Amino acid sequence: MTAVASDAAGKDRGAAAGKPRGQAAQHKFEMNIEETRITLVGQQTFQTFAYAGQVPAPLFHVREGDHVEVVLNNLTTLPHTIHWHGLLQRGSWEMDGVPDMTQLGIQPGDSFTYKFVAEPAGTMWYHCHVNVNEHVATRGMWGPFIIDPVKPAPIERDVTGDYILMFSEWASSWADKLGQGGMPGDVFDYFTINGKSFPETQPIRVKEGDVIRLRMFGAGGGFHSIHIHGHVFQIVFKDGHQLPAPINADTVLVGPGERYDIILRCDNPGRWMIHDHIDSHTMNGHTPHGGVMTLIEYDGIPRDQSYYHWAHKEFVPDFYYEESLRKPHGIHTNPNFKGTPVA
Amino acid sequence: MTAVASDAAGKDRGAAAGKPRGQAAQHKFEMNIEETRITLVGQQTFQTFAYAGQVPAPLFHVREGDHVEVVLNNLTTLPHTIHWHGLLQRGSWEMDGVPDMTQLGIQPGDSFTYKFVAEPAGTMWYHCHVNVNEHVATRGMWGPFIIDPVKPAPIERDVTGDYILMFSEWASSWADKLGQGGMPGDVFDYFTINGKSFPETQPIRVKEGDVIRLRMFGAGGGFHSIHIHGHVFQIVFKDGHQLPAPINADTVLVGPGERYDIILRCDNPGRWMIHDHIDSHTMNGHTPHGGVMTLIEYDGIPRDQSYYHWAHKEFVPDFYYEESLRKPHGIHTNPNFKGTPVA
Amino acid sequence: MTAVASDAAGKDRGAAAGKPRGQAAQHKFEMNIEETRITLVGQQTFQTFAYAGQVPAPLFHVREGDHVEVVLNNLTTLPHTIHWHGLLQRGSWEMDGVPDMTQLGIQPGDSFTYKFVAEPAGTMWYHCHVNVNEHVATRGMWGPFIIDPVKPAPIERDVTGDYILMFSEWASSWADKLGQGGMPGDVFDYFTINGKSFPETQPIRVKEGDVIRLRMFGAGGGFHSIHIHGHVFQIVFKDGHQLPAPINADTVLVGPGERYDIILRCDNPGRWMIHDHIDSHTMNGHTPHGGVMTLIEYDGIPRDQSYYHWAHKEFVPDFYYEESLRKPHGIHTNPNFKGTPVA
Repeated sequence: MTAVASDAAGKDRGAAAGKPRGQAAQHKFEMNIEETRITLVGQQTFQTFAYAGQVPAPLFHVREGDHVEVVLNNLTTLPHTIHWHGLLQRGSWEMDGVPDMTQLGIQPGDSFTYKFVAEPAGTMWYHCHVNVNEHVATRGMWGPFIIDPVKPAPIERDVTGDYILMFSEWASSWADKLGQGGMPGDVFDYFTINGKSFPETQPIRVKEGDVIRLRMFGAGGGFHSIHIHGHVFQIVFKDGHQLPAPINADTVLVGPGERYDIILRCDNPGRWMIHDHIDSHTMNGHTPHGGVMTLIEYDGIPRDQSYYHWAHKEFVPDFYYEESLRKPHGIHTNPNFKGTPVA
Repeated sequence: MTAVASDAAGKDRGAAAGKPRGQAAQHKFEMNIEETRITLVGQQTFQTFAYAGQVPAPLFHVREGDHVEVVLNNLTTLPHTIHWHGLLQRGSWEMDGVPDMTQLGIQPGDSFTYKFVAEPAGTMWYHCHVNVNEHVATRGMWGPFIIDPVKPAPIERDVTGDYILMFSEWASSWADKLGQGGMPGDVFDYFTINGKSFPETQPIRVKEGDVIRLRMFGAGGGFHSIHIHGHVFQIVFKDGHQLPAPINADTVLVGPGERYDIILRCDNPGRWMIHDHIDSHTMNGHTPHGGVMTLIEYDGIPRDQSYYHWAHKEFVPDFYYEESLRKPHGIHTNPNFKGTPVA
Repeated sequence: MTAVASDAAGKDRGAAAGKPRGQAAQHKFEMNIEETRITLVGQQTFQTFAYAGQVPAPLFHVREGDHVEVVLNNLTTLPHTIHWHGLLQRGSWEMDGVPDMTQLGIQPGDSFTYKFVAEPAGTMWYHCHVNVNEHVATRGMWGPFIIDPVKPAPIERDVTGDYILMFSEWASSWADKLGQGGMPGDVFDYFTINGKSFPETQPIRVKEGDVIRLRMFGAGGGFHSIHIHGHVFQIVFKDGHQLPAPINADTVLVGPGERYDIILRCDNPGRWMIHDHIDSHTMNGHTPHGGVMTLIEYDGIPRDQSYYHWAHKEFVPDFYYEESLRKPHGIHTNPNFKGTPVA
């Protein structure tokens, strides 16, 4: 078996370049599921079943109506699928990815090809549908699937920067026990944005006048009550769909499976926290000041104060897929999220 | 004592038949509270205090302004009441059913008669208000109370099928310990729709063109983040009251005590999951692929694929009170929900 | 060190009296953080780090645009700060109160002066930002910060009574272990409104025709699904900001960090429960009928029925800061919430 995780974005660019506006593009992608070990924070590693070896999984970024084909190779020791959460699968319900319902689970060593049209527009995602208590809740089997609308809403056209934040939690007692975990009563003691806990998350760097869109995902089985300092933001989309009217807020509750897109106007230079207000979700195990936490850093605000925790932070771009989302449509892997193979 | 659980629906039909449009009907019902044992799934039974011996309790389905009288006989070993959740009780606050606040708890062997006007319109419910940590959270003392409006909203008039889904959870360690349980820290390990866990729930069978209304209830003490595949539905009512505008979504978070009515247009033939996205709520104890899960089955989609978990499913109608809701107004028992008496 | 907790409200009155309408007032306040022991209910005490020695902390009640200066003296054994949750801190991000991000934690024996403009209008609050898992979730370091708008919305002008309800939870195993607690997996077993569990909460006394505003705060790390009997209320504000349209409901879910202002028209004389529908939140440890529970009592409804739990209740005004909120703008302490010093 010579399956590889290959980014089809290059092909897509070519394919899309010659097409008249409004015509559907074709996106093809081949992806392995691999057993990897990721590092949540510090010494805390966690074994995962990882699409393309990464957590979060590759970014799908396509246009409404595009055709998508994914060859999925299961290189792990347990069965898996992909459910494309929020996609309609009109005329293609057997591509919906639910074991024993729309297909058989893909056995170890086997492959399955998903083919479907990307609709409706919005912030969607994908995840395994086998043993979701383990595979989704605590093995990192999820990634973002962004479908740009043919006709964007006016408020979307203001956006200058687009960010993916997938929230999840981890029960460290199961870290090295692939095939187990996610039971009722489990104690989840690590909490992450895109698979990392503070201080190993990354700042969101903006300049005054930016208008940022934060796409928030309840990717695990837990709740996240996300508070942002220094701004009144607008909750504009739920589950990819525009709300009847934007809701002004400083805190947004993201439940399991839900997505909320918020739009925040960068009109208040400073250094501002973004964090989960479920207080225990700022713990890394028994250590406070971690978990679901990051900062908005404005250009022009000095970052070298001696008291600043991130004064010497090494900045890693694309941690929120913000660079990938600027690229032409396609499927984008991200080396930041790569784990190491489990021996 | 000769108390019986009698369905007054027959009387109601007679009573309502001769009335001019707009005049209030009278509904009288006598109901015992009984100690029963229900089966959640497989071998997992649970002892309950059950109104009319069933979980969920009988369906009250009346019209706004109707008069309701319920004689409640407590045949169990502990005190109980009924609180009519969401009903105004205008001029009848002593019928509100809160022990030590609006009445004394109804002692074992005693009876109490509730009399009130059914208002406002909407998806309401009823439950015991004694020791709610046990009686509501884990002994099944709840049922639906649907009040049809005198003037339905336009969106309601599109509906072709109406379904009741009451979500709750169960801590198996208390299954056989009536009078105990529901403590802070309890591990709830079974999760049900109308008292049953998958695979012992029932499919929702529709045909293309149907417009279904799913009335969802947070009947227990837990949260349920309900995701439906293959459709964008509309969240139209909260707690029985129409929202200012429908919210498009694929997931709806139902908190304890809340009700959400969603309207789903059946425009996408296939086989589609409905499930709780709190991943551990798809467990039956330690076994995955259970809990709060069911499917929408479209007519015309073959149900006999070998891989389909429900290929040989015995279909039981009225599991969602969908048949009862088509009947004339009245109080409807349901043999599907009957337990067996605790010896 | 001669730090004192002094109420500057008197000064404010003087200052505001001579000012033309529309001009900003100045509010100065000096406040200690003290180690105190409060009583949640019965014999259950809890050690806190308490702003001005009280839980909830003093009420800040100012007008949009007012200038606020707070001298904070840390008389405890651990570092602390104040984060002004929901306030913009425009041009004053270093007053945002996040340790290692916008300032250093204020060490034991040290002081810090916060200076900022009070904006935007709405139901805001303040809390410590050091070790929030302990200090916010289970040591009572929070208080209300109400900013009246320069131009109130029409619906606000109907209000005849204004109430503060701060919800939180407590893990009794940490009651006497200052500096510990708030770990993932902790069992929270006491649940309070403004630091008290039923039956030691207070009734909300109204008369027919009143229009009350209940400002609800998710002050701890838990959820509260607040149900009110006998009324359809309107959810009007989230996080201090007016919703696009009021939402009619009988239950409102308040997540950690969130605030919801509801408006309830007192048109239904009776005695009506307000309680958390997360059933276990009505427990006091192992005892039912406690926790997050209170009642609305209408004038004219007799309170002396023998069955009424609160027939002989000693009424304590200002438990919801409802008296303080009628006073001129200022910072208001409340003797109801004072603890006793930890020896």
